[in-house]
Amino acid sequence: MALHFPPEEFAARRNRLNRALAAEGLDGLLMFSQESMYWLTGYDTFGFCFFQCLYVGVDGTTALLTRSADLRQARHTSNIEDIRVWTDAAGATPAVQLRDMLDSLGARGKRLGIEYESHGLVASNGRAVDAAMDGFCTLQDASAVVTRLRAVKSPAEIACVRKAAELADAAWDAALATIGPGADEGAVLAAMQGAIFAGGGDYPANEFIIGSGADALLCRYKTGRRRLDPIDQITLEWAGVYRHYHAALMRTVCVGKASPRHRFIHAAVVEALEAVEEAIAPGRTAGEVFDVHARVLDAYGLAPHRLAACGYSLGAKFTPSWMDWPMFYTGNPWVLEPDMVMFAHMIVMDTDTGTAMCLGRTSLVTATGSEPLSTASLDLIVK
Amino acid sequence: MALHFPPEEFAARRNRLNRALAAEGLDGLLMFSQESMYWLTGYDTFGFCFFQCLYVGVDGTTALLTRSADLRQARHTSNIEDIRVWTDAAGATPAVQLRDMLDSLGARGKRLGIEYESHGLVASNGRAVDAAMDGFCTLQDASAVVTRLRAVKSPAEIACVRKAAELADAAWDAALATIGPGADEGAVLAAMQGAIFAGGGDYPANEFIIGSGADALLCRYKTGRRRLDPIDQITLEWAGVYRHYHAALMRTVCVGKASPRHRFIHAAVVEALEAVEEAIAPGRTAGEVFDVHARVLDAYGLAPHRLAACGYSLGAKFTPSWMDWPMFYTGNPWVLEPDMVMFAHMIVMDTDTGTAMCLGRTSLVTATGSEPLSTASLDLIVK
Repeated sequence: MALHFPPEEFAARRNRLNRALAAEGLDGLLMFSQESMYWLTGYDTFGFCFFQCLYVGVDGTTALLTRSADLRQARHTSNIEDIRVWTDAAGATPAVQLRDMLDSLGARGKRLGIEYESHGLVASNGRAVDAAMDGFCTLQDASAVVTRLRAVKSPAEIACVRKAAELADAAWDAALATIGPGADEGAVLAAMQGAIFAGGGDYPANEFIIGSGADALLCRYKTGRRRLDPIDQITLEWAGVYRHYHAALMRTVCVGKASPRHRFIHAAVVEALEAVEEAIAPGRTAGEVFDVHARVLDAYGLAPHRLAACGYSLGAKFTPSWMDWPMFYTGNPWVLEPDMVMFAHMIVMDTDTGTAMCLGRTSLVTATGSEPLSTASLDLIVK
Repeated sequence: MALHFPPEEFAARRNRLNRALAAEGLDGLLMFSQESMYWLTGYDTFGFCFFQCLYVGVDGTTALLTRSADLRQARHTSNIEDIRVWTDAAGATPAVQLRDMLDSLGARGKRLGIEYESHGLVASNGRAVDAAMDGFCTLQDASAVVTRLRAVKSPAEIACVRKAAELADAAWDAALATIGPGADEGAVLAAMQGAIFAGGGDYPANEFIIGSGADALLCRYKTGRRRLDPIDQITLEWAGVYRHYHAALMRTVCVGKASPRHRFIHAAVVEALEAVEEAIAPGRTAGEVFDVHARVLDAYGLAPHRLAACGYSLGAKFTPSWMDWPMFYTGNPWVLEPDMVMFAHMIVMDTDTGTAMCLGRTSLVTATGSEPLSTASLDLIVK
């Protein structure tokens, strides 16, 4: 068993969860999010791609239902003692097996929370669970319960985030050593991801974003690499990842030379990022932070070229995405607290001139404000 | 726009889909699977982590509803012309916007298929869609329609798979150059993934499996790297990936020396893999293939140490997993056809003696049998 946090830490998390469930009037929680399971028990797998559920009762019960391929995985990575297996076969009905497991654990007739908003529970399985539990227990959407608890990090978690931030800076150094006219995007990716693996880090929960030329205006990964032109631009968004905790960074690098438009937008995104980081402070809402970003960029005339969100929380996330809640979008009432970890990205994609200029980094919310976790310069870089 | 297949290929896929939908009595399909969207239109993103739907009507309609961050992504990577955006905001209701989009496209009162079994449609969004469509149109689970079409590859897709298989072999060479007493698992991972990126390949849809010592008995990725002992074992499962098409391999490497138990099990998994590959042929069912695997391993007394599945289809998959349908498990009636791509893994994890020994590779189903796509030896390797 390789737990990455001490038993007292897991016990404290369990206590927080029990209090939160009790406050919702729930007798237990059907966990489907791998993020929740990892946070509560250490259980670490991508087996959530199939049906899998961790039942947590406020009475202290903890029991996992998973597939045979994950039996040893749960034993080696988590503190879960009661692990049950459903078997692949034509006509397998794991949701019914889940109900039978809950029955054996005394959950009949109880009021249980369920994580419907989870990549561990696709809609077809959600429907199967609803059908299996009909008349057996009462289900109540509790998708946000663990997400809210996870958003505020413990000192041990913050140590992981700081290590992740170091790996992110190391990946940036590796990228800068590779980028230049004629460089192959694939080599850039190999250098960045290699620095993170060699440093003991993990895969990211989503692919690094890499795009150059016209595709520097994209902010998602896609297949297909190219070589940089003598005069070019390349946008990168990546995260150092340690114990699955993410610390993200984002940059657009000019190759050969920077255009006046690059320089103009760069000035705007630096001002926006600095204003946003000023706004990332306890007591401010995620919606206010977004509005600061929009106000600065719109004053530069960049309203048509920015996105409708400018960042989000980071933590121990699994695929398909490292984006965690809360997100910085207008009107989001989620109030920031100390020990939250927030990634702010100023993304400007000007289709009219074909210019990309992005700048982002991760900050830790402190008692009074926030602290950027990267030591990398915000200056415009021309390689 | 960077489409990776010619227009005629996409047109042929659309024709196959329209015929399949008509055969099911459907007027259209609400696509939520990124795999389906990529196959039909080239659209390439991990934006399916949020609400996103591609509507495809048998009348020729194609329209995407996605977030602002994916607007350009859809324009640059797909042939979709009608792209609409829902905006993040407190109280955003994208499922209602989807209904409004469908209404504008004349889908009111129609019978539409929907991909409920999709990592692009989590249970909470599935419930929102059901509620929004109630009384507007009739929904019918059609999760398997595109999956079945995707399972049989075109010549252009097989070319991608062959390139992926070359990248998988290159990653294996890189691993073998790194593995030995004292080697760091992180360096092995960096070498393998680096070979694939440098060769123009993509991220895998799930993390590579890497585990040594006691964790060589795991068949999932987990955080936490270690150095190999003078006498050790390391299990690797990885895929070369090109244009998102996967070709997987699996090996356990002995470090320092191989135990008699390693050699005994190795003989069993070679015999099992060869028997399985003999069984991978048109007209055979996925269930029969599993049973061949079980029969061979059980004759070696390894029944307690094998899994309940021994492989699956591979193709252009997105996170959280590269495992595609059909899977080799007992009783699976899916009949194999030419031009399917099947990964067979013989996984033996002997907890009693702490011995892991795994062997797997990917084969192309041919007109008369199957062809392994890797040139790597099946011999036991001691480094």
